[in-house]
Amino acid sequence: MGLDPSRTVAELRALQQLTGDEAGAQRVAWTDTWARARRWLGGLLEGSGLEEETDEAGNQWFTLRGHSDRVLLIGGHIDSVPNGGWLDGCLNLVAGAEVLRRLASEGEPPLTVRLVNWADEEGARFGRSLFGSSAAAGSMADVEELRERRDGDGIALPDALAGHGVDLDRALEARRQLAGAAAYLELHIEQGPVLEGLDLPLGVVLGTFGVERHEITFRGQAAHAGSTPMDRRRDALGAAAKLALEVREIATRTGQGAVCTMGGVVTRPGIVTSVVETAECLLDQRHLDAGRLASMLAEARAASERFAAEEDVEVEWDRIWRIEPILFDRDLVALAEEAVGEVAGTSHRLPSGPLHDAAEISRAGVPTVMLFVQSLRGLSHTKLEDTREEHLELAVRALDRLTSKALERFARR
Amino acid sequence: MGLDPSRTVAELRALQQLTGDEAGAQRVAWTDTWARARRWLGGLLEGSGLEEETDEAGNQWFTLRGHSDRVLLIGGHIDSVPNGGWLDGCLNLVAGAEVLRRLASEGEPPLTVRLVNWADEEGARFGRSLFGSSAAAGSMADVEELRERRDGDGIALPDALAGHGVDLDRALEARRQLAGAAAYLELHIEQGPVLEGLDLPLGVVLGTFGVERHEITFRGQAAHAGSTPMDRRRDALGAAAKLALEVREIATRTGQGAVCTMGGVVTRPGIVTSVVETAECLLDQRHLDAGRLASMLAEARAASERFAAEEDVEVEWDRIWRIEPILFDRDLVALAEEAVGEVAGTSHRLPSGPLHDAAEISRAGVPTVMLFVQSLRGLSHTKLEDTREEHLELAVRALDRLTSKALERFARR
Repeated sequence: MGLDPSRTVAELRALQQLTGDEAGAQRVAWTDTWARARRWLGGLLEGSGLEEETDEAGNQWFTLRGHSDRVLLIGGHIDSVPNGGWLDGCLNLVAGAEVLRRLASEGEPPLTVRLVNWADEEGARFGRSLFGSSAAAGSMADVEELRERRDGDGIALPDALAGHGVDLDRALEARRQLAGAAAYLELHIEQGPVLEGLDLPLGVVLGTFGVERHEITFRGQAAHAGSTPMDRRRDALGAAAKLALEVREIATRTGQGAVCTMGGVVTRPGIVTSVVETAECLLDQRHLDAGRLASMLAEARAASERFAAEEDVEVEWDRIWRIEPILFDRDLVALAEEAVGEVAGTSHRLPSGPLHDAAEISRAGVPTVMLFVQSLRGLSHTKLEDTREEHLELAVRALDRLTSKALERFARR
Repeated sequence: MGLDPSRTVAELRALQQLTGDEAGAQRVAWTDTWARARRWLGGLLEGSGLEEETDEAGNQWFTLRGHSDRVLLIGGHIDSVPNGGWLDGCLNLVAGAEVLRRLASEGEPPLTVRLVNWADEEGARFGRSLFGSSAAAGSMADVEELRERRDGDGIALPDALAGHGVDLDRALEARRQLAGAAAYLELHIEQGPVLEGLDLPLGVVLGTFGVERHEITFRGQAAHAGSTPMDRRRDALGAAAKLALEVREIATRTGQGAVCTMGGVVTRPGIVTSVVETAECLLDQRHLDAGRLASMLAEARAASERFAAEEDVEVEWDRIWRIEPILFDRDLVALAEEAVGEVAGTSHRLPSGPLHDAAEISRAGVPTVMLFVQSLRGLSHTKLEDTREEHLELAVRALDRLTSKALERFARR
């Protein structure tokens, strides 16, 4: 029984039928639909001689015992955002299931191979993404804070988890699952337009961007829109507007995939008859290189201070969140390029803007690499998300090829 | 008994004691505190031989019968915004009371002189400003709409008015009050920084600005802040930021008191991880010249379309409200300049950015002029609003002088 990539496409469509509706995928973690999707995934691998278990963080594991206790991991997530896309996360699980079925049909592999369905990558219901992978990686430091989280209906996170057999207080015991891990592989849709722009089906991910997120508040003086001359104003929106435009220039000047986004501005009092007194700006800056990310942040800070002085307003920065760039394993990146080159002719190295479970596993010290398959129009987290069938099939082949290469490489060590 | 401007200052302080607190003036129309202020105003004029009445719109009138049935009107408003200033509106009533007492002590004036306390100039509770003066002017066209308005506690406007003896359905009967009106005079604090900047205590108001208010919506495409390259974005905030800066340039280029204000921007989805899809901007443009106001609007429209094209987003304009410039009476402006010149040495002509009851009365065809007295730091609608005592006293003298000149002028006709 050889690899059948067309079966993966058919199975992905069946999953969408089972767990989606006309508005998109509805596999939000810790819901009945999500549980249905997990049972369906188990069904795909029934009769293949794999062991299935669920760990203390709700991660679903399928194990194909090999000659060695050393483990090759393939991971994805079956949860989606509400009204999500049909491929985000689950592509890798369904493709991984196909690879495991192929391996199982060929007898005992040199390493143990495990497919993991991480619990709650999206954080759509409780606002905490990478739940299961951060528990397994041992980096989940916010258990006390998570205990207080509630969803939109007021249901507490621990209660929702308990409904799926997960005890929040024991989630970190999932750490034992990474014991013996030799490598971690993850295939994902790109969620951006880079590969489509290059007309390439597949790419190899160098790592995930470092991220700096800040709230920047400009404070001027509310003043009557009718009676305050233009040269007597202390217009917080003026400074915010200058910064909104400047952060785009900073990203463009930095290049090398740099992105800077002002994702929102809240203006107060925010009425048509008053000059804006305060403007609260949300800034997101990302780069794969820590030094360049730090430079972009410093440039934005300096610009904000210059604009504040020009507008005679005050400026204050508050960090919302940051994460360092996470670079994937160099040897695995090279191996992945071989695999993609053999399957698709040309490969392309690119960073990942979004975070992924792979970042958590890489931070935990497991050599990691990701493959990206082209997304049409770069659309993600919407029912409009799509990838050509021929590209999906190439992606299954590339993951399969990479798995074989990794087994061969680590068996030799 | 001659004019005593220092008494006006003392009475204004007494009113603030009676109807304000540490947060500012609390004379919001249709409240008990407002009613208390009205009774207090009546008390100021008791024993001066004036007739007091309240019309169908809740306006409070004090009449000093003169030799002729032709009427010289002096008007202001005792209502304030919540946490308002101690002078806004009531300065004119208390100064006008002083002028009427002076006139009454001198026997029958050549014309009938009436002081009017307009009901609900601010519109603070129900969002409908110039209530009483628009009823008297006959321009109140929104009675049906007003019937549905409710305050923040859910109390309907007609019920609140009924509690003060006003029947909304009869408010327009107040129109008869303007019969025989020869002229309308109004003294007000400037609510802006122009006179302070010129170091002048008093100015003569040329008229009220025409106003154009629009909501401008830019529509781009939400996209992942991490995975969407800078050159692939359709950033609605980029276009909004350019327009926020450009409208200020339009006002500065236009000059002659022009003001343009972007008072607020609402960004959607407005989250740190997404490029802004829609930006809804509030634009207020004002000028005393209708042609220049129209040009400013056309320039802003053209700029918005240019920016939309640059950012590959769509733009849509919706008018919120407009009013034409209202020019005060040329002869009365000249008379007011004489009065201010005699009292303060130097006068200055300036437009009014804010609207006033005087605009409604002028639109109704009554020759109208306003005097402004300097506001410290131009602050208004806050407890920080203030004017120097010496300037308040000069203002009382100027109103008194203008009243005498107007009586003389219209008695001759």
